This record gives sequence, structure tokens and C-alpha cells, in this order.
Amino acid sequence: MRPMDLNADLGEGFGVWRLGDDDALLGIVTSANVACGFHAGDPTTMRHVCDVAAARGVAVGAQVSYPDLAGFGRRYLDMAPRDLTCAVLYQIGALDVLARAAGTRVTYVKVHGALYSATVTDEGQAAAVVAAVAAAGDVAGGLPLLGQPGSVLLRLAAAAGLPTVAEAFADRAYTPAGRLVPRGQPGAVLTDATAICAQATRIATTGEVVALDGSVVTVTARSLCLHGDTPAAVEAAMLVRDNLLAAGVPLRGFSGA
Amino acid sequence: MRPMDLNADLGEGFGVWRLGDDDALLGIVTSANVACGFHAGDPTTMRHVCDVAAARGVAVGAQVSYPDLAGFGRRYLDMAPRDLTCAVLYQIGALDVLARAAGTRVTYVKVHGALYSATVTDEGQAAAVVAAVAAAGDVAGGLPLLGQPGSVLLRLAAAAGLPTVAEAFADRAYTPAGRLVPRGQPGAVLTDATAICAQATRIATTGEVVALDGSVVTVTARSLCLHGDTPAAVEAAMLVRDNLLAAGVPLRGFSGA
Amino acid sequence: MRPMDLNADLGEGFGVWRLGDDDALLGIVTSANVACGFHAGDPTTMRHVCDVAAARGVAVGAQVSYPDLAGFGRRYLDMAPRDLTCAVLYQIGALDVLARAAGTRVTYVKVHGALYSATVTDEGQAAAVVAAVAAAGDVAGGLPLLGQPGSVLLRLAAAAGLPTVAEAFADRAYTPAGRLVPRGQPGAVLTDATAICAQATRIATTGEVVALDGSVVTVTARSLCLHGDTPAAVEAAMLVRDNLLAAGVPLRGFSGA
Amino acid sequence: MRPMDLNADLGEGFGVWRLGDDDALLGIVTSANVACGFHAGDPTTMRHVCDVAAARGVAVGAQVSYPDLAGFGRRYLDMAPRDLTCAVLYQIGALDVLARAAGTRVTYVKVHGALYSATVTDEGQAAAVVAAVAAAGDVAGGLPLLGQPGSVLLRLAAAAGLPTVAEAFADRAYTPAGRLVPRGQPGAVLTDATAICAQATRIATTGEVVALDGSVVTVTARSLCLHGDTPAAVEAAMLVRDNLLAAGVPLRGFSGA
Repeated sequence: MRPMDLNADLGEGFGVWRLGDDDALLGIVTSANVACGFHAGDPTTMRHVCDVAAARGVAVGAQVSYPDLAGFGRRYLDMAPRDLTCAVLYQIGALDVLARAAGTRVTYVKVHGALYSATVTDEGQAAAVVAAVAAAGDVAGGLPLLGQPGSVLLRLAAAAGLPTVAEAFADRAYTPAGRLVPRGQPGAVLTDATAICAQATRIATTGEVVALDGSVVTVTARSLCLHGDTPAAVEAAMLVRDNLLAAGVPLRGFSGA
Repeated sequence: MRPMDLNADLGEGFGVWRLGDDDALLGIVTSANVACGFHAGDPTTMRHVCDVAAARGVAVGAQVSYPDLAGFGRRYLDMAPRDLTCAVLYQIGALDVLARAAGTRVTYVKVHGALYSATVTDEGQAAAVVAAVAAAGDVAGGLPLLGQPGSVLLRLAAAAGLPTVAEAFADRAYTPAGRLVPRGQPGAVLTDATAICAQATRIATTGEVVALDGSVVTVTARSLCLHGDTPAAVEAAMLVRDNLLAAGVPLRGFSGA
Repeated sequence: MRPMDLNADLGEGFGVWRLGDDDALLGIVTSANVACGFHAGDPTTMRHVCDVAAARGVAVGAQVSYPDLAGFGRRYLDMAPRDLTCAVLYQIGALDVLARAAGTRVTYVKVHGALYSATVTDEGQAAAVVAAVAAAGDVAGGLPLLGQPGSVLLRLAAAAGLPTVAEAFADRAYTPAGRLVPRGQPGAVLTDATAICAQATRIATTGEVVALDGSVVTVTARSLCLHGDTPAAVEAAMLVRDNLLAAGVPLRGFSGA
Repeated sequence: MRPMDLNADLGEGFGVWRLGDDDALLGIVTSANVACGFHAGDPTTMRHVCDVAAARGVAVGAQVSYPDLAGFGRRYLDMAPRDLTCAVLYQIGALDVLARAAGTRVTYVKVHGALYSATVTDEGQAAAVVAAVAAAGDVAGGLPLLGQPGSVLLRLAAAAGLPTVAEAFADRAYTPAGRLVPRGQPGAVLTDATAICAQATRIATTGEVVALDGSVVTVTARSLCLHGDTPAAVEAAMLVRDNLLAAGVPLRGFSGA
């Protein structure tokens, strides 16, 4: 059985505000996508997540974003490529020094929100992110980019010689073509815990998923993205983890942190 | 003759706004205190300063600040020690990755504005900064702190085993006790280029300065802080440099970058 | 029986983040201290609170703060008086136009967090706030300032001819001198709902409170400040309201909105 | 001869940073588009511009923007309509209270940067801005919107019963269809002061402009937009004003402030 990584967005509070239960999720996932201050995440919160991640052997990744606290990085921002490259570098470096102070390192990068969506298709913005990750990497072999299989971002990263890691979603419906059903369409988000667990386990054990129309499509993924912004989501994440373990899937980070 | 370092605050624009002539100053100084985004300095500006500094062999230092763009870091902010430590680490890391992308490194730290003033006497805030600098340093021997001789900050840094570098000011008047005359008092700031050059050269060659009352006091400094936020200031900085060279003072950074 | 106002801090989320249950509190209080974007509160959240307040006949007040989202306005910031005056004006105006769009108006001002604490004793900052409130008021008679009795802020406001409204706290212990026991001291914050209700009712019906040492002191207040940032706090606020009504206290805003 | 208004973007500094010479331009223009804090403009700067504008009888307009200090409002941001409406209201209200404190009022609205470009064609964003301006207006007849003739923004504003004011540009080239030649194309921006003055005077006296291909097209405008972000621009603005006066064009604001 091939190992599976579990990743989740963490440290997405800011100042007094919290989003999700970071400590609970850090007991479940193998990779923590830590917000770096541009869509969420102040330095103290970043340090706390790194401390707990280090203590639990969870890999720390830089979850980089457009600079937009008010919009939580969910709004497209038309940044010039050089500005985007420098902004991504800035976020990676800021998190990395906090991770090192906590006894660990940034071992991968994932893009957040509207930047995630944009870099699925936008060559310019994807290239700007890849340039940053390539420049950031003093790790042997370069920092891996975790993202959506088939995206322009992963294609350009691979072309630049960076490791890429494909992720799948336990709680998102897929089209017959193996794409995510866009949010907002009926059935796009799975909310039933049993269905979420079944999809997670099927992806991990067979590399397949049942699409929205009932057809079976191939979804190759080394990592599963979990959500944890509600108590129910944390509960579901725990169930996914337990079901995967029961099915004999080894849960293991991809980044060798 | 002992070597002297020339440092100046650089990269203090933000977005479309500029403050001072970075490129001109990078032709004069041996150490660049680069703003890290909290009082000034966006990622693209930081990268540009690092690029030019790397090309000219100027050392890059992290000029860290309270988070206060609107106040340019000049207003005291009562930050909790842990928040301050994490904020300083964040800034150092953000600049360091941009410096590395430019082919150089952060080789020292200097505190800015109201944090500079506070850490002259405030044990809690000084200790918080020292904790950050100590944690940031994967450089052999630790990152040096550049600051005011006699300050609590340098005392605590030395006690923590960090290298410390004392700076003096060519354009600030000194008290008979060897302290800076507070801004706002008559004569606190020298504006005559000849007087500024004379003070710089005397500090560099004899370790002495003529205080406001005419007495001669000892001012030991390995670095001189220059200002460059006006065309006249850049002009004065050039004159200081030329006078020091004419007096046979070797101009050399302290950080071995 | 003299009427009593119930005020609470509202709209203290930012973007995706929430703090407390605004809608629940708007069913309890008679005056809403609405965050204006400097310590919390984005324009959309401000508008929503104004909409609900207007629908329920709750008065809208501007809860003005230092500009410090990362610190939630809880950290002292050494602002120059003119900057502070302009910042307070800015916040009042921003909220007022959103309130007017919702069919209501800003009818009072309350200062938040570290600015609240500072203006209890700091003449310069208190005078700066008073100057703003005086300048903002095109309401006949001026905008009332809601605050701590005995504070420099209310004294200067009264001297400037502004209406002032004294508030008391149901969940804070008082000293024998009638001051708040500083947070952090043992017993400073009441957590038992019965004790909170008893203190609220006693203040409203007799103008007295039992101090921490058991003595009875006079606390004159036209408004009681309630907290609502936890489910338990909302529960306690409802109990306070119900107990006051049962004791025959008319609950009525002070600002005539 | 029909009167002509001269408008310029003002108050576009932030904190210590300055952009253009506000005081010089306030001696030239009849309408000041004042930045409201989202792309530039802190409360103290806003107040200063209002003070000077009030003293010189210059009308104050709210120059509203996407929230993007780092990008100076020049980058498209995909804001939801309700968020955009509330953000525009917030900015208008913030400036209006500062204007009132200075003895004047906000008497019109102009959109800035990327929002200006977007609302030329984007129905959703244009409608969101119009909704804000309509809601803001307690001025008899509503707040006028100053903008580009033919834009969706002015069309929707007129449909909503708001006054609209068409502006033309003295220093931008026009297409044979009477549109602006996009920046970046050769000849898009006029830099010769004589050519700028000639275009300004022709627009004001005949309602015509010579397009880039030499053809003459009709450009109806009640206001001319001047730029002042460089010393040369201020010089050119003065020349435009002097040429218009020499041609007998009455310079008069449109908003009756």
C-alpha cells in the first residue's frame, strides 16, 4: 500500500481571531500548510503552529497568498509577476525562520485561495510562484510544491526541476474528467462524514474516485487535503484518518521533514 | 588606523512611495539597514536593495521595527515580549530569503525608530529582540546587533553571546556624558556639512567627539550612521565618506558579508 | 426607577473572522459600540451591525481605537494628538455613513482597549479624542461620550460642552475607592452569572456596588457594559437583562437615537 | 464660453511618504480628488488637504479605491459587490467628516486606479459603486460622480438618478473613436507642455480633440483631469490653467461646493 499524506490549512487566525482548531488538526495531519501573514497568520500564531508541528513530527509548509487580510486571500488580485515572486519569497522566508526557531524547517509550499485558483490556469502568475519557490530552495533538490494535478502551476514547477506533489480532496465532488466540481454547483462539497471517508479511502487505496455522474475516474494523489475550520470538520478529519489507518494505508508526509 | 563601517537606512519606500535615494546611498555605505515591511519596505523594494547591495559588496542588515506603516515605526507600541520576538524573527527571515535570492545574506540586525529608542532602556523589549536575534542565527557565531553603545539592547545581546557593534552619529550632537542630545533640543541635529564631516572624521580617527558644551568625550564606534532621506543628506554622506578616505580611514563593513 | 442603558462591543470581527455573536447581543443591548475598522470591523461587517441595530432600535455608537488590527487595539500606541484626532474623526465618519445607509445614525462615541485605558489618565490623548468628537458633532448638542466616570476623558469632554455618559461594569470587581480592580489581579473579573446579575441589578437600582473588600461604594452609571465574546458571556448578558427587567429597571438607551 | 473644472488627485501620500505637491496643486485646481485611506491617504493628510481646499474654495471629492496600499489601488481586485459598496461608503464617510471638520463637505465622488478602469466596463462593480454613492448622498439631488464619458459607471449613475460629470484629459492621447489610447501604447501620454496646453484649451473652447491619427473628434467634458505627481507635472498644470484663462475659459467647479 502506498503511503498517503494528510494536509490541512493551519494558523489561519490573526491577532485575537481564530479559525479552526489548530491543535486538534496537528494531531491528525502529517503536513501543516501554515498561513504566512498575507491572508492570515501573525508571527506569534505562526510560531505556535511551528512549535506544535515540530513536537508532533508534522511537516511545515508555507501556505502563500496574495496580500489581502480583509479578503482572506480569496479575491483575485492582479499582481505583477515580479511583485508576486517577491511576495512569495517574503512569506516563505518569514515562516522558515520561525520554523527553524521551533526546531523544524519549511519543507514545502502550497498556494492559497484565489492564488491557488489563478495558478491552475494563469501562466504568468504560476511562473511567478515557481520562480519564488525555485529561488527559496536551499534544500537539496528544491522545495516541493503541493497542488492540484493538471494545474499549470505543477507543470511549470516540474519543468523548473522542482518536486511536485499532487493532492486530492476527500470532501469535494469530481467531474467525469477528474476535475473538481466548482464550488457553488450542487453537490460540489461533500458534507456527509461517511461519504467523505469513503472517498478518502478509495482514493488512497485504489487511486479512483466516483464522479458526480457515477462514473469512476482516476485521481492520483500523494496527499489528501482535509478541512478543519469547524468542529464538524475536525470530527470528519479524524474519521478520515481512522478509516485510512483501518484500511492499512500508511500515513506519511511527502517532504521528508 | 582602525576600519570604519558606514551604515544607512535603506529600502524605506513602500509601494509607489520612495524615501531617500537608495541607489545613491548604496554607492556610499558599507552596510545597508534594509526595512523589512513593518515600518516600510515591500518585498519588491527589499529585493531591489538586496540586488544592488550584492552587486556592490554592501552588507545587508535587517532593520526591524514595530508593525506600524502609518507611523513609520516611530511611535512606541506596547508589544508583549513574545509577540515582539516573533515579529522580529519574521522580519529577519523575510529579508534573508530575499537576500539569498539576490546572492547575499542578512549579516546583522539593527532596530528602527521607536523600537531603537525603547530598547536603549526597556529591559523587556530589549530582551525580546535579543531572543529573536539569537534564535535567527544559523550564522556561525550569531548575527551581530548594530546599535547604540551603552544601550540595554547591546548589553543583553553581549550577555547572550551575540556579537555587538557600536555605532556613532556624524550628524547628531553629543552630551558631555557621551549620549545623544535628544531630538527637539536646540543643536541636537547637525546640518552643516563641514561640521558633520569634522565630527565623522574625529570619531573615526581619534574615537572622540566635541560635546555640545565644548568638552571632548570618548565615543567608541565601529560604525557611523549616515542619513540619506534628502538630496542634501546624500550629498553630506558623500562628503563624510570622502573626508574619511582622505584621512586614511579604511571603510570596511563589520559583518564579513 | 431611573432607566438603564446596556452597551456592548459589537462588529469586532474582520473579514472571515468573527468575535462574539453580534446578532444575539443586538437582541439584548440598547446601545451597540460598533468597531470602525482600526482594531476590528470591516465595512461590510459594520454595515450588517448597523442594519440589525436599526431594525431593533438599538443605538449605534462609534467604538474608536488606535490603528492596530494585529493587536486588536489593546496595545498602547504613542500617537501624536493631531494624528489621534484625525484618526478618531475618520472612524466616526466611516461608521456614520454606513449607519445612515442603514437608516440610523452614530449617536455616541466610546473609546476602545488601550485608548480607553490611556484616556483615563493621559491628558494629551484624552484632549485629542475630545477634539475629534467635538468636531464630528453636527448633532444638536454634540455627540455624547460614553466612558469611565472619573476619567480625564469624561472630564475634558464635559469641559468642552459635550454630553458625557458614565458606565459601570457588571462583571468587573471594584475597589473600595470605586475604581475597577485592574485585570490580572485576583478577583478582578466576575465569572459567576449569579454574582454578575446581582452586581448589575444593585448598580441599576441603588447606585451601589460591593467592593472587593466587602465595603459598599457608590457607582453612578447611566449605562452598563456587557461582554459577549463567548457563548457563556451572551448567556450572562441575557440573564443580566432579565434580572434588571424583573427588578423593574427600564432598559433604555441614553442617546435618543 | 462654458465654464471648465480642473480636477487632480490629491492627498496621495501615506504617513511619512508624499506623492506630488498637494499645496501647489490646490492653488491651481477647482476640484480636489482626495485619497481616502484605501490606496493612499492617512487621516491627518486627508484633514490637511481639506483644510487647504476649504481655505482656497476648492471642492473636495472622495477619490475611492480598492483596499490596496501596497499596490496603490492600481491592481484589479475581485471584490464582491456588497463588499465594494460598503468599502466605498466607508471611504466617503471618513473623508466627509474630516471635510466638515475643515469647514467644507464632500461634494462629489471619483473612482481611482484599477477601480476606475474596471468600472468603465464591469457592470457588477460599477453598480456596486453607484449603490454606495446613491446611499451616501444626503446632499440635495445626490452626490455627483466624476468620470469617463461613455463608461458603464456614468451610465448606471445616470440611470440611478445621480448627477454625472464627464472629464477629459489634457495629457492623454485619444483614439479616432474618442477613447483614451491605452497606457503602454506609443504616444498614449503627452509629455510636451505645449501640446498638453493646446489639447486642454481646444477641449475647453471647442469640445474637440485631435486624435492620434490626426482626425478631429468630439470630447465633451465639464472637467479636465490634471496630474501633479512630479515637479514638471505641476508646472504643466499651471500652464494649462493660464492658457485656459487666457482663452477666456471660466474655471469653475461643477459641484457647487
